[in-house]
Amino acid sequence: MSHSVLAIGNALVDVIASATPEFLAGRGIPKGSMQLIDAATAEALYGAMGQGREISGGSAANTVAGMAALGAKPAFVGRVAKDQLGDVFAHDIRAAGVDFATPASTGGNPTGRCLILVTDDGDRTMNTYLGACQELSEADLDPQMVADAGILYLEGYLWDPVAPRAAMKKAIAIARAQGRKVAFTLSDVFCVEGHRADFQDLLATHVDIMFANEHEACALYQTASLDAAMAEMAKHAGIAVITRSAAGAVVLANGERIHVPGEPVAKVVDTTGAGDMFAGGFLAGLSEGRGLADCARMGNIAAAEVIGHFGARAEADLKALVKARLG
Amino acid sequence: MSHSVLAIGNALVDVIASATPEFLAGRGIPKGSMQLIDAATAEALYGAMGQGREISGGSAANTVAGMAALGAKPAFVGRVAKDQLGDVFAHDIRAAGVDFATPASTGGNPTGRCLILVTDDGDRTMNTYLGACQELSEADLDPQMVADAGILYLEGYLWDPVAPRAAMKKAIAIARAQGRKVAFTLSDVFCVEGHRADFQDLLATHVDIMFANEHEACALYQTASLDAAMAEMAKHAGIAVITRSAAGAVVLANGERIHVPGEPVAKVVDTTGAGDMFAGGFLAGLSEGRGLADCARMGNIAAAEVIGHFGARAEADLKALVKARLG
Repeated sequence: MSHSVLAIGNALVDVIASATPEFLAGRGIPKGSMQLIDAATAEALYGAMGQGREISGGSAANTVAGMAALGAKPAFVGRVAKDQLGDVFAHDIRAAGVDFATPASTGGNPTGRCLILVTDDGDRTMNTYLGACQELSEADLDPQMVADAGILYLEGYLWDPVAPRAAMKKAIAIARAQGRKVAFTLSDVFCVEGHRADFQDLLATHVDIMFANEHEACALYQTASLDAAMAEMAKHAGIAVITRSAAGAVVLANGERIHVPGEPVAKVVDTTGAGDMFAGGFLAGLSEGRGLADCARMGNIAAAEVIGHFGARAEADLKALVKARLG
Repeated sequence: MSHSVLAIGNALVDVIASATPEFLAGRGIPKGSMQLIDAATAEALYGAMGQGREISGGSAANTVAGMAALGAKPAFVGRVAKDQLGDVFAHDIRAAGVDFATPASTGGNPTGRCLILVTDDGDRTMNTYLGACQELSEADLDPQMVADAGILYLEGYLWDPVAPRAAMKKAIAIARAQGRKVAFTLSDVFCVEGHRADFQDLLATHVDIMFANEHEACALYQTASLDAAMAEMAKHAGIAVITRSAAGAVVLANGERIHVPGEPVAKVVDTTGAGDMFAGGFLAGLSEGRGLADCARMGNIAAAEVIGHFGARAEADLKALVKARLG
C-alpha cells in the first residue's frame, strides 16, 4: 500500500517528570531547551529526577501518530533497539495506526529516550539520549515505499547523526525523482545553529513544505525580525508554516500570508509535542485535500489537545475534535 | 534507620491504555476485574491493546509511595528483574522517597507488569503478568529492618505465589515477635476466593489493621450483607477499614463504626490505585498519630487525587491537599 506520509525520525520513549525551575538551574539546564546527552549524563539525570511516566515520543513519530489519529495512513522509519523500551515504542506507534517496520538493532546502544522535565507552567525541557536512533542507515529505507508515499516528512533533529542524515538524503533523492513532496521541520534552534547552511540549502532546493516555530525561523536567517525570516522562507518552500504557540500559526504560500489563531486550552499541563502535533494535524488536513487555513486549524486543534496532558501523543479523539470545530 | 511502614508487595510497572467495554467483552475479560496472566497471554493482549503509558505501580508499592508523598518514611520489599522496566520501577519508588533495596534478579523472568485497560467511565481492568515478582523469597528480607519497622504492610495479591508467601509469613513472625503492628489488604475478590481460609486465619490471629473494599469483605465471609461482613471483621483485627468507592470509608475499631464520606472528584479518569492510595493516606495518618477519622479522610484525599488522572501514583502535592482539607 502507499502512504500519505512517510516520516523518518528519532524513535524515542519520553520519560516525563515534574521539576522545579531551581532543579533545572542547579544542573545548568536552560529551561525550555532541548539538548543531546550521552549515556552517562542520562543515567545521572534520571537518578536525580522525580517519578516518571514513560510515553512514546520522537518528533516525527508523534506527528505521524497524530496523523493516524486523524484518519491518515502514514508510515514511520526509525531505529529502536531490541529491548523493553524498543518494544514500547514499536507497540505504541503501531497501535496508533502507523506502519512501522524498521528492524530493531541488537548489540548496539539501547533504545533512545528523552528525559523531559516539566515545570508548573507546562514548559518542557528535553534531554535526549539518542541511543539506537543514531544507528538508522540508508539500508533501512525501502526505496519503493519512499517512492510511493505522497509526502516524505523529515525531522531536523535527525540531521545531527551521520548515518541517519545519509538515509534522509537518499530518501529525499528518491522522493524528488518521483515528483513527491518533501516536508521538513527545523525541530529546534540548536539544530538550526548546527546545520544552518544545510537547512538553508534544503529549503531552497529540496523542500516543499517547511515547519518552524518563530524562534527557529529567526535563527535560520539570523534575524530578530520574524517578518524578515518569513519573507525569506516564502521565497523558497512552496508552503512554509510558522507556529507561534498561543498566538496560533502563519502559513506562507502562493505569495499569501494566512494567519490562523490558536485554539483555546483550559490548562497547559505539558507543552511537549505541541509542534509535532501541529504538523500532524496540518499534514492530515493536506492529505484530505483541505485548504491551507483549515490545515493550520487542524494543526492547532491537535496541538491544543496534546498540551492539556502529559505526553506528546493524543489522548482524546482528535477526529471528533476536528469534526466539532471544522465539520 | 527504622521505617514507619515496611511493605512487601508486587513490583510492577503498569501499562495503561484506553479500551472500550466491547474490547474487554470480545476477549472475555470481565470489566473491572484483576486477573493473573502468563507471558504469552500478556504478549497477545499487549499486541491488541492501544497506545500505552508506562507508570510504576504495584499495590503495596503505590501505598508506600503515597505515604512518602505525605511525609512518612516507608520501605518497600519486592522483586524486579535487571531490565529497563525494573530500572523504571526502582527509579520511581526511590524518587518517591521510599527505601527500596531488594536486588534485581538476573536470568529469570522479566520485570512484572500490569496491563491496565481503562474504560471511559474510569473503571480499570487489570491483567497482571507477575514475572520477576514471584522470585521474591525469604532471603530478600532484612530481618532487622522488618523488626524495626513500626508497621509491616502486606498485600493479598502476593499471597498467591509460593516463595513470596513464605517471605511474608516470615516477616509476620519477625514483626509479631517484636510487638510490631501487621497490616494487610485483601487486594481483590479473586485473592479472597483463592485463599479464604488463610486470610480468615491471618485476620483472626496475626493482623492488626485490615483493609478491604466492600466486595472483598463480603467475599471473605461469604455473605451478601456488608453489615454481616463488618461484624465479623470487627471481631478480629484491631482496626478494620472498609472502602466504599464514592461512598467513602468505614473504620471499625474499639467496638465503634466510624463513617467517613468520600472526597469530591471533578472527573474520574482512572480508578487504578484508589484503594492503594487510600491505604497510603490512612497509614500516613496513623504514623503521624492522627485519630482514625482523620486517617480515613487522609486516605480519601489521596484516593481522590489519584483517580483524577491516569496512573496510580500521585501527581499533585498530597501534603498540600491534606493541609488544605484537614489542617
